[in-house]
Amino acid sequence: MILAIDIGGTQFGLILATANGEVVHHLQRSTDRSGGAQWMIEQIISESQMLINKSPKPVVACGIGFGGPVNFDTQHIINSTHVKGWDNCPLPQIIQKELHLPAIVDNDANVGALGEFTFGAGKGSTNLIYYTISTGIGGGIIINGNIYRGSNGNAGEFGHSPIRLNGPLCDCGNRGCLEALCSGTAIGKRTQEAIKKHPRKGRVIRHLSGKNPITAKTLFDAAKQKDPFAQSLIDDICTDLGMSVATAMNTFAPNVIVIGGGVSKAGRTLFEPLRKKTNPFLMPIHRPHLNIRQAQLKGRSVLLGAVALAQQTL
Amino acid sequence: MILAIDIGGTQFGLILATANGEVVHHLQRSTDRSGGAQWMIEQIISESQMLINKSPKPVVACGIGFGGPVNFDTQHIINSTHVKGWDNCPLPQIIQKELHLPAIVDNDANVGALGEFTFGAGKGSTNLIYYTISTGIGGGIIINGNIYRGSNGNAGEFGHSPIRLNGPLCDCGNRGCLEALCSGTAIGKRTQEAIKKHPRKGRVIRHLSGKNPITAKTLFDAAKQKDPFAQSLIDDICTDLGMSVATAMNTFAPNVIVIGGGVSKAGRTLFEPLRKKTNPFLMPIHRPHLNIRQAQLKGRSVLLGAVALAQQTL
Repeated sequence: MILAIDIGGTQFGLILATANGEVVHHLQRSTDRSGGAQWMIEQIISESQMLINKSPKPVVACGIGFGGPVNFDTQHIINSTHVKGWDNCPLPQIIQKELHLPAIVDNDANVGALGEFTFGAGKGSTNLIYYTISTGIGGGIIINGNIYRGSNGNAGEFGHSPIRLNGPLCDCGNRGCLEALCSGTAIGKRTQEAIKKHPRKGRVIRHLSGKNPITAKTLFDAAKQKDPFAQSLIDDICTDLGMSVATAMNTFAPNVIVIGGGVSKAGRTLFEPLRKKTNPFLMPIHRPHLNIRQAQLKGRSVLLGAVALAQQTL
Repeated sequence: MILAIDIGGTQFGLILATANGEVVHHLQRSTDRSGGAQWMIEQIISESQMLINKSPKPVVACGIGFGGPVNFDTQHIINSTHVKGWDNCPLPQIIQKELHLPAIVDNDANVGALGEFTFGAGKGSTNLIYYTISTGIGGGIIINGNIYRGSNGNAGEFGHSPIRLNGPLCDCGNRGCLEALCSGTAIGKRTQEAIKKHPRKGRVIRHLSGKNPITAKTLFDAAKQKDPFAQSLIDDICTDLGMSVATAMNTFAPNVIVIGGGVSKAGRTLFEPLRKKTNPFLMPIHRPHLNIRQAQLKGRSVLLGAVALAQQTL
């Protein structure tokens, strides 16, 4: 039995699973950001202890996906932009001490990529590129079945590829990054701006949102109802995303490009225009090989990836 | 002793070298395009036989870098856009039959990357990205010391990353590819267009070219003389190239990005603005690690890479 932990900015999740990815227990908790890292670690330890006590078989290892940069070589969290107190935290060492389990941590996008590769949309592939599109855009790379971290440990930052010269400001401080154009947050903003500019054409979207703020989900819901204004805005967004996906295809030539995260839940309303808009940017020799798939593990990509990571490395 | 062959569109080269990359003989010949593949193969065989006869020690293997797509798994040339008759040619098999040497072929950009990795600007690195910028833009990837070919064999096509939406037409049929903006050919065209638009500002460049056509070299020569018009045009070109280099850095996180090919001979006139223009596109976490270097093997990247390829695989 393997214990897996997914630590995000707003939630954390725990599962107990077999090495084959069969989930025996799963629990999900909200994060009290104000409590900081100390509070979260205490919660994680006590919930984990509870799961271990419930386990039908001995728990032998713990894998962790963390929502922020991780120094994989030293097994320290680098920091979290969402929750205070994580700077330079040796989380696996703490887990090991408290739960008497060997533990391993990596960045959640890397771990999510490994999850989809091992148990999800990338099963059977050799090389895989993973985008996770929600509040921000994270990325992970699998090469020859292993997470590829690059020479400085921070490979796979597809969210910060420059797409548009002098484009909108990104949280990283640069302009025109993919994340600043196509993250869930950015899609919401682009929709709001488009409606301000064309209030009439935005009728369907405004109607759907009612008194709630207009989000990425509102846009995709309107497109599902065949609203041409929403569809054309999604085409523009998929053009930007397609430039990045085409570059990933032309350079990494993976078997499969998996897209997960909240925005991917839009399903074919996202994936059909994305394939159409990516195609003209692909080198002709790569066109027949393009294989963009929706993540399959439904919010468990990171947790099941943490199972695979623990299994691979411990 | 290893025999290495570099087959380009306008020239072919042969060397005899030790496994350590010490070159014992080197010869370079012009290509008669009209003769097609058959003529070239005959030339290569007879020149190779001559080198083998001259060799101080037995020649045990042959490595080949080919200027066009190669199916590495089946060891067939796919085609050449420059010379007719190469379609589906099993070149290593022919070499093996005629010269009684085990032979191996790969695309010249891959082989050039391996050459710089083994003997040149990337010596001592683990992961390397290679751009070769001359008539077109080729690319090669070294991951964990090996050429990375991706799942379909055509990884590393940095020249066809989409950089500018609705940009200039590329030879591949797409618009706004890096190659259509920053190859030697494209730089020449951009310079000619800029001068048409601003004939007065182009004085220095026009003076340097005299009655010859204005090329990329003319532009870099003018910038070396501190011509502000040339420098500002190079800044624009480096902004486009920098977008691609930054994406390579943010995603592959290599130890080193090596740039070779004719355009790289401009030296610091290219590399200084390129570093300056790439920097603002890098994720802050990657900035301290950027390491762009000029290829060191002076026109022998492919030949010495073919030595390394033969050594690695035969």
